[in-house]
Amino acid sequence: MSNRIPHFINGQQVLTEGRSSDVYNPSTGSVIRKLPLADDKTVQQAIDAAKAAFPAWRNTPPARRAQVMFRFKQLLEQNKDRIVRLISEEHGKTIEDATGELQRGIENVEYACAAPEILKGEYSRNVGPNIDGWSDFQPLGVVAGITPFNFPAMVPLWMYPLAIVCGNCFILKPSERDPSSALLVAELLQEAGLPKGVLNVVHGDKSAVDALLQAPEVKAISFVGSTPIAEYIYSEGNKRGKRVQALGGAKNHAVVLGDADLDNAVNALMGAAYGSCGERCMAISVAVAVGDAVADALIAKLTPKIRALKIGAGTELGLDMGPLVTKDAQNRVLGYIEDGVKAGAELIVDGRGLSVAGFENGFFVGGTLFDKVTPDMRIYREEIFGPVLCVVRVDSLEEAMRLINEHEYGNGTCLFTRDGEAARLFCDEIEVGMVGVNVPLPVPVAYHSFGGWKRSLFGDLHAYGPDGVRFYTKRKAITQRWPQRKTHEAAQFAFPSNG
Amino acid sequence: MSNRIPHFINGQQVLTEGRSSDVYNPSTGSVIRKLPLADDKTVQQAIDAAKAAFPAWRNTPPARRAQVMFRFKQLLEQNKDRIVRLISEEHGKTIEDATGELQRGIENVEYACAAPEILKGEYSRNVGPNIDGWSDFQPLGVVAGITPFNFPAMVPLWMYPLAIVCGNCFILKPSERDPSSALLVAELLQEAGLPKGVLNVVHGDKSAVDALLQAPEVKAISFVGSTPIAEYIYSEGNKRGKRVQALGGAKNHAVVLGDADLDNAVNALMGAAYGSCGERCMAISVAVAVGDAVADALIAKLTPKIRALKIGAGTELGLDMGPLVTKDAQNRVLGYIEDGVKAGAELIVDGRGLSVAGFENGFFVGGTLFDKVTPDMRIYREEIFGPVLCVVRVDSLEEAMRLINEHEYGNGTCLFTRDGEAARLFCDEIEVGMVGVNVPLPVPVAYHSFGGWKRSLFGDLHAYGPDGVRFYTKRKAITQRWPQRKTHEAAQFAFPSNG
Amino acid sequence: MSNRIPHFINGQQVLTEGRSSDVYNPSTGSVIRKLPLADDKTVQQAIDAAKAAFPAWRNTPPARRAQVMFRFKQLLEQNKDRIVRLISEEHGKTIEDATGELQRGIENVEYACAAPEILKGEYSRNVGPNIDGWSDFQPLGVVAGITPFNFPAMVPLWMYPLAIVCGNCFILKPSERDPSSALLVAELLQEAGLPKGVLNVVHGDKSAVDALLQAPEVKAISFVGSTPIAEYIYSEGNKRGKRVQALGGAKNHAVVLGDADLDNAVNALMGAAYGSCGERCMAISVAVAVGDAVADALIAKLTPKIRALKIGAGTELGLDMGPLVTKDAQNRVLGYIEDGVKAGAELIVDGRGLSVAGFENGFFVGGTLFDKVTPDMRIYREEIFGPVLCVVRVDSLEEAMRLINEHEYGNGTCLFTRDGEAARLFCDEIEVGMVGVNVPLPVPVAYHSFGGWKRSLFGDLHAYGPDGVRFYTKRKAITQRWPQRKTHEAAQFAFPSNG
Amino acid sequence: MSNRIPHFINGQQVLTEGRSSDVYNPSTGSVIRKLPLADDKTVQQAIDAAKAAFPAWRNTPPARRAQVMFRFKQLLEQNKDRIVRLISEEHGKTIEDATGELQRGIENVEYACAAPEILKGEYSRNVGPNIDGWSDFQPLGVVAGITPFNFPAMVPLWMYPLAIVCGNCFILKPSERDPSSALLVAELLQEAGLPKGVLNVVHGDKSAVDALLQAPEVKAISFVGSTPIAEYIYSEGNKRGKRVQALGGAKNHAVVLGDADLDNAVNALMGAAYGSCGERCMAISVAVAVGDAVADALIAKLTPKIRALKIGAGTELGLDMGPLVTKDAQNRVLGYIEDGVKAGAELIVDGRGLSVAGFENGFFVGGTLFDKVTPDMRIYREEIFGPVLCVVRVDSLEEAMRLINEHEYGNGTCLFTRDGEAARLFCDEIEVGMVGVNVPLPVPVAYHSFGGWKRSLFGDLHAYGPDGVRFYTKRKAITQRWPQRKTHEAAQFAFPSNG
Repeated sequence: MSNRIPHFINGQQVLTEGRSSDVYNPSTGSVIRKLPLADDKTVQQAIDAAKAAFPAWRNTPPARRAQVMFRFKQLLEQNKDRIVRLISEEHGKTIEDATGELQRGIENVEYACAAPEILKGEYSRNVGPNIDGWSDFQPLGVVAGITPFNFPAMVPLWMYPLAIVCGNCFILKPSERDPSSALLVAELLQEAGLPKGVLNVVHGDKSAVDALLQAPEVKAISFVGSTPIAEYIYSEGNKRGKRVQALGGAKNHAVVLGDADLDNAVNALMGAAYGSCGERCMAISVAVAVGDAVADALIAKLTPKIRALKIGAGTELGLDMGPLVTKDAQNRVLGYIEDGVKAGAELIVDGRGLSVAGFENGFFVGGTLFDKVTPDMRIYREEIFGPVLCVVRVDSLEEAMRLINEHEYGNGTCLFTRDGEAARLFCDEIEVGMVGVNVPLPVPVAYHSFGGWKRSLFGDLHAYGPDGVRFYTKRKAITQRWPQRKTHEAAQFAFPSNG
Repeated sequence: MSNRIPHFINGQQVLTEGRSSDVYNPSTGSVIRKLPLADDKTVQQAIDAAKAAFPAWRNTPPARRAQVMFRFKQLLEQNKDRIVRLISEEHGKTIEDATGELQRGIENVEYACAAPEILKGEYSRNVGPNIDGWSDFQPLGVVAGITPFNFPAMVPLWMYPLAIVCGNCFILKPSERDPSSALLVAELLQEAGLPKGVLNVVHGDKSAVDALLQAPEVKAISFVGSTPIAEYIYSEGNKRGKRVQALGGAKNHAVVLGDADLDNAVNALMGAAYGSCGERCMAISVAVAVGDAVADALIAKLTPKIRALKIGAGTELGLDMGPLVTKDAQNRVLGYIEDGVKAGAELIVDGRGLSVAGFENGFFVGGTLFDKVTPDMRIYREEIFGPVLCVVRVDSLEEAMRLINEHEYGNGTCLFTRDGEAARLFCDEIEVGMVGVNVPLPVPVAYHSFGGWKRSLFGDLHAYGPDGVRFYTKRKAITQRWPQRKTHEAAQFAFPSNG
Repeated sequence: MSNRIPHFINGQQVLTEGRSSDVYNPSTGSVIRKLPLADDKTVQQAIDAAKAAFPAWRNTPPARRAQVMFRFKQLLEQNKDRIVRLISEEHGKTIEDATGELQRGIENVEYACAAPEILKGEYSRNVGPNIDGWSDFQPLGVVAGITPFNFPAMVPLWMYPLAIVCGNCFILKPSERDPSSALLVAELLQEAGLPKGVLNVVHGDKSAVDALLQAPEVKAISFVGSTPIAEYIYSEGNKRGKRVQALGGAKNHAVVLGDADLDNAVNALMGAAYGSCGERCMAISVAVAVGDAVADALIAKLTPKIRALKIGAGTELGLDMGPLVTKDAQNRVLGYIEDGVKAGAELIVDGRGLSVAGFENGFFVGGTLFDKVTPDMRIYREEIFGPVLCVVRVDSLEEAMRLINEHEYGNGTCLFTRDGEAARLFCDEIEVGMVGVNVPLPVPVAYHSFGGWKRSLFGDLHAYGPDGVRFYTKRKAITQRWPQRKTHEAAQFAFPSNG
Repeated sequence: MSNRIPHFINGQQVLTEGRSSDVYNPSTGSVIRKLPLADDKTVQQAIDAAKAAFPAWRNTPPARRAQVMFRFKQLLEQNKDRIVRLISEEHGKTIEDATGELQRGIENVEYACAAPEILKGEYSRNVGPNIDGWSDFQPLGVVAGITPFNFPAMVPLWMYPLAIVCGNCFILKPSERDPSSALLVAELLQEAGLPKGVLNVVHGDKSAVDALLQAPEVKAISFVGSTPIAEYIYSEGNKRGKRVQALGGAKNHAVVLGDADLDNAVNALMGAAYGSCGERCMAISVAVAVGDAVADALIAKLTPKIRALKIGAGTELGLDMGPLVTKDAQNRVLGYIEDGVKAGAELIVDGRGLSVAGFENGFFVGGTLFDKVTPDMRIYREEIFGPVLCVVRVDSLEEAMRLINEHEYGNGTCLFTRDGEAARLFCDEIEVGMVGVNVPLPVPVAYHSFGGWKRSLFGDLHAYGPDGVRFYTKRKAITQRWPQRKTHEAAQFAFPSNG
């Protein structure tokens, strides 16, 4: 079938028979492509290609490896429209949102262009008398990435540009929901001059994941997805002596203080809660209002904006929100809304029952707002991953911080205030890996690193940026001494035959 | 009983009843002390003390935390003789060797004194227009170290000075074979001004290790020991969401090229193979001679020196080697020698049957040399951890390197040569974490980091030095924006009551 | 004469005849010691000693050089009382203030203890195929420091611990007003184990300065003092191919916004304006009040506190302020006060005519406060270096910042506010090298670097901290390639006679 | 006239009347263009444009500034042929050599693309209790570059991409001999999206240089040229409070040991001595042979290769060498050859009297080789800047190093050997800023920094790379504390009107 998506192995598209899954356009609810699910043999084929490509790629100077990334950046910019359309078509997010996603991914490619700088080792002359020591950072070999549906282009770009520019060969297993943009992007890297086998894409489900986990040639795995699977991959990978960084779920709180610029905070919350239908691990899903006055004002200002959200097929322009990614996702979110009502939360805006004209089978849920949510409710404790914002009311910043610090997740958080001291206290003591001050989605730029705390990330090192470099390299420490001659006479160095 | 060793919890010696084990003087073969083996309750007591001490210690500025380390260095230097005597008495190594061990440990304290420098984060102004971003490195909380018998003072000093100066609280479980020096050293840190509870020492066996593994309050574990236990701790710790760095076994090869300064190489090998009775994870246990001429010369020069080794009770001065640490260790080494003979290796010097006058019950084995060892023999494949050096003969540097790269361990290695190119080739392509050029024990200095590759280390980050800092801290990324006013008139900032 | 102060050259006290100057106790107004003023021969003697000591010191591993600094820190702490008393006796500052000064100096010694870390170079494997490159930081040779009277112990400690630990040899010319503490401190470094000749102290005036400027062996000069002399040394030193960093005058403004915690700001201003009698290059000498309400409140709260300042002989305990350093300094300050009155500033507290019982000949001036100072007045434009605080009234933060940015000096400044945005705006756009937010004396800690902008500092690199390391070292870049052999057979490396 | 070259000011070509100079094609000896020499007014126009552009450019986030550099790299690659032809036409070097020059320049643009990484500041939480400190690197404002004829495209690219990406505005005064390639390159940066006024090009001679030196708006000057002018600019610039880095002359020695791979060394020397007609500050102009056997072999192998050099018009393909840049340069080199002969050096190959068919008026000198040159000869002491290689004979490596260390210049040097110890000794103790081991032109890659020692460079910081970043930025140190409230109740933060 022409709509069967290929794997990409050793520089070539590879079509396989066997098990497959359906790829939907969530705006229409229809199947648009078929995705082959790799069996062990296909996974091994990719591993073999990567392994074969490694020795030459490892020995390519970093500055030359970076040249491929410079060209990759150009190609991504030139092919932006194609990529963005594929994202939107399979994921459902708006074109504008997909464009932002791709831009963030390109920034990771830019960081990879700095390979010669970021791979510098440390040199010490005279660690002892006439003894020198230095540390070098060498690639691991074959490494793999397993990426989620919610940023089908960006999350792969968090991983392989850096892994590859560090000298590794890479196997990507993109999400089976929306794999096409990831495949296109990977092919562009090939077009940019990457030797074949250095990057490979295999599609698949748990079976492919397990094949990667079990393969001794795979030295490291980067994962982004849900917490239970993150934990599984972390412990299974580690058990086999691999490095793993596994990023999982989140429940990100925004705290609003009374001195905040409320209009600004409300606009920020709208984007952070409902952008991409809430299907972001950095989405704000809880707004913590400090004081009832703040809570009342927030609710008053949010309500009409939520009702006015422009919702439709992601591939159309000028929208605020598209559908959820699957029917299952839609049902899960609807279930949470019902659960919230039952638990006694006040449902201010109800997103259920939304029908988009012309897209009646799309997986839509409208923007939803709960007030008076309490920490014991499921809608507070669990990650909904949908367009549902919960308002929690507290009496002090300290109480807000206690809530956040007691939550099992610690991915992102944000404080709205004008007060320098409140900001410093919050940044210092909050048990969360990524903190915003008046910045609702504090995703670190590509030259810093991304990572949550607590059960939002398993591993020592965060994703991309400086931590990414360390994750994709291993330290080699060298100590060197040369036995000394008294003097270095000409005779002593004269042609060996006279020696 | 006066010879029962206490735990050290919350700043105080704690004596417990219950299970205990014997501590020997291996030179005499006699039990000299009794060691309590902590039950879960005692371990929990230490964890509770550490947890209680954490908030205040975390908030103590790094420069003040460093003051404790400056004083600790002084106290270690002032108490050197006491510490060294305890090491030698319980471990068996010579006084000179114990002195060297302590010196290396002190260097890690010196590195910890640089806390304010090594904890610097990264700051970026204008990650976006008027948005700033920075990364901060925050302590983990309660962390633990489990250390081996072979460097009873040094390995704990690899861990807790750095962990503590980074703001963590620490629980040390030293080896049950020779715990007294570790205990003394820990008490000196308290004397240096460390708040109580920041460092705790609990003695114990697998039961205590498991209690640490299971405690949710313990956020990270550093381990040094054998590979099977390293693997166990790595996977059990990871399974519970902890960070783990676990250092295991080794089989360190020294390659000798024909252009090497042979006398120099032979002297280096003597120390590296027989020092501390070979009970070092960086000991050279295989000498790879490139060419038979080199092999013959090596054997000829080593043999008389091995026979002349001065062996006796570690606590006496002027010796080259003391006993092995336990009767079991002695038996294991003797078993390996027998196994080597059976497998067909040529036994050049036989260390069996050594009796030291006045110390007839000591756990002694003499220096042993095998020639014509081959890669299939157990004495080649396994870590003997005794005074046994195996000579392997090869035809080229490439062949030597292939041997090393195929061995399951990759801790340390060394090349003896005068040739710049050979050195560069070796350093670049050898699959080993710590490489020496004419340096037989390439243990990185305290301001670089220590770690092997392959099955010699499990984890992303090496021990001590810059990697140690990253292991004992987690990254927090902050993104900050302040909503802008047009101008900042006096009126606008006037006392709020007028606002 | 027993009260004649010696030079310290090549590890020994050296007494010279010839020109001399008087050293006073400014609290009593009496001469207490005689200071020899070095002629060219004496300066050259110091240079020769430094030059002779250089080769061995340069080759001493950084970690060993750091050991001297560790011991130096201990000796400084043990001799704190003696040093502090000498500072106070010759400079006039209070014992508490001198103690603070010494503490800050010791922190620079602590930073020097991190030598192995801060001297790390950058290493790049494969800058080209099989070509490696690295950068190393090597000492300059003989370098000199010329230091001011106002921090007689601290400013020398900004310079030579770092210069020396980087491998240089040093010549210090301390202020001729209060040289005794600097001499004592230097002798303690010798006692700490510094090889003789590595640090030398010569006393003198312009003639000694010129001898240092002209000596080709002196590769770099660090200077702290007034702007005209800083400029002279900068251009004369540069003309002779030396590196120079020359720190000059200051006029540090504190801006107070209406939302500031005023009591806190007032307390901060008291210390920053009147501490050490205003004889600090980081002293706050201008308070810029944003809005008349703030100005009125400031004046109201400052006035009684200024009148209540406890002023007396620096060597007594429990005081707020001592005398100025010389009769000339006293007269200069009194002249400025008169000038301010004539120019139309409102003299709120008049410090003239102060007499301290028992110390009637001391060089005292009381705390002085002017209101309604304007930018055209000499008391605003020039550095008074005395206990005189000028209040300037403005209408907005922007106006306050314009004032500061237009002033010729740009050393330090501070903003008092609670507002995060105001702080960010101020920090970003103010043309001043050291900025405090609610910190009145934003002297960077020893692991950052000290330096003003505009005519407050001449040179590329700031003092101490990371910039200090770069100032005291020169970069050497090495590029290394080894011609490759095909294989490395045993025969090829066999004894050369067979080659 | 259509062949009058314009200035480039505020984003536009500016044609001026007044004084001008001739631009030659040195291969034909004919004038091909006229160059206007800027008067003070034109220089000031450029300064004004730069100053006006500064505030907005400074506030543009580094990551956006870097985007311009990414596009600049593309444009340079797309326009490579045009640029290379202009270089060759006006300078005389071969097309292949010009291509190499441009490539090196592009690498500096690549380094500038890493702006967000290389501009990171240092952040310290808790420099005191609840006090944070950080250091930021801010642009200087308007800075200038004065560049030499020998790398008309590359040396400007060492300077302004980095200066500009750091946030500065730049004025380039290229060499008046071959300004066209620099102008074209600058226009391409504009095309890449640089705001107008950020980069300006003014042509001129000493009068323009002096105008830049005197302008108070110009905060820093980078210069590459001869040592007397470097010294002039360094001391005149410093006198006016500017930062200056001024790179001057060189006399680079290659030392050849008896164990070197001689064929390799000879090939390396051919390129390093005669490439670009010896008009490179990194050209090898002295070969130091250790032992007569080495010297004799070198002479024997070099002679036929020098005689076989293919010399012609630079713009033709397949040549080894073109003409010198001017008639004056030709005469100067011929004079040196005559002087060498008179002084008693042995002239092995005589490059005088060369005539190239069809280019009889070109400024050609053939490859020239002297043997038995001694340190007292002018051809040894002075920089010839022509295709003249001097062989000096010595008896030991130590003697060779003494020679080098006593020479007034210390730019580059190289050792040919296989011996690790010799290489280490040489690298460690040679008084030269850039050192090669078997690398004849050890120009550091763009991510390290370029700079000589002794009278080859005046200034603290080397050119481009990490030092370049520091040269083009000034450090600002911020210390921040927020006065603490007890708790942060809702009421306290509630709308100010309730406050």
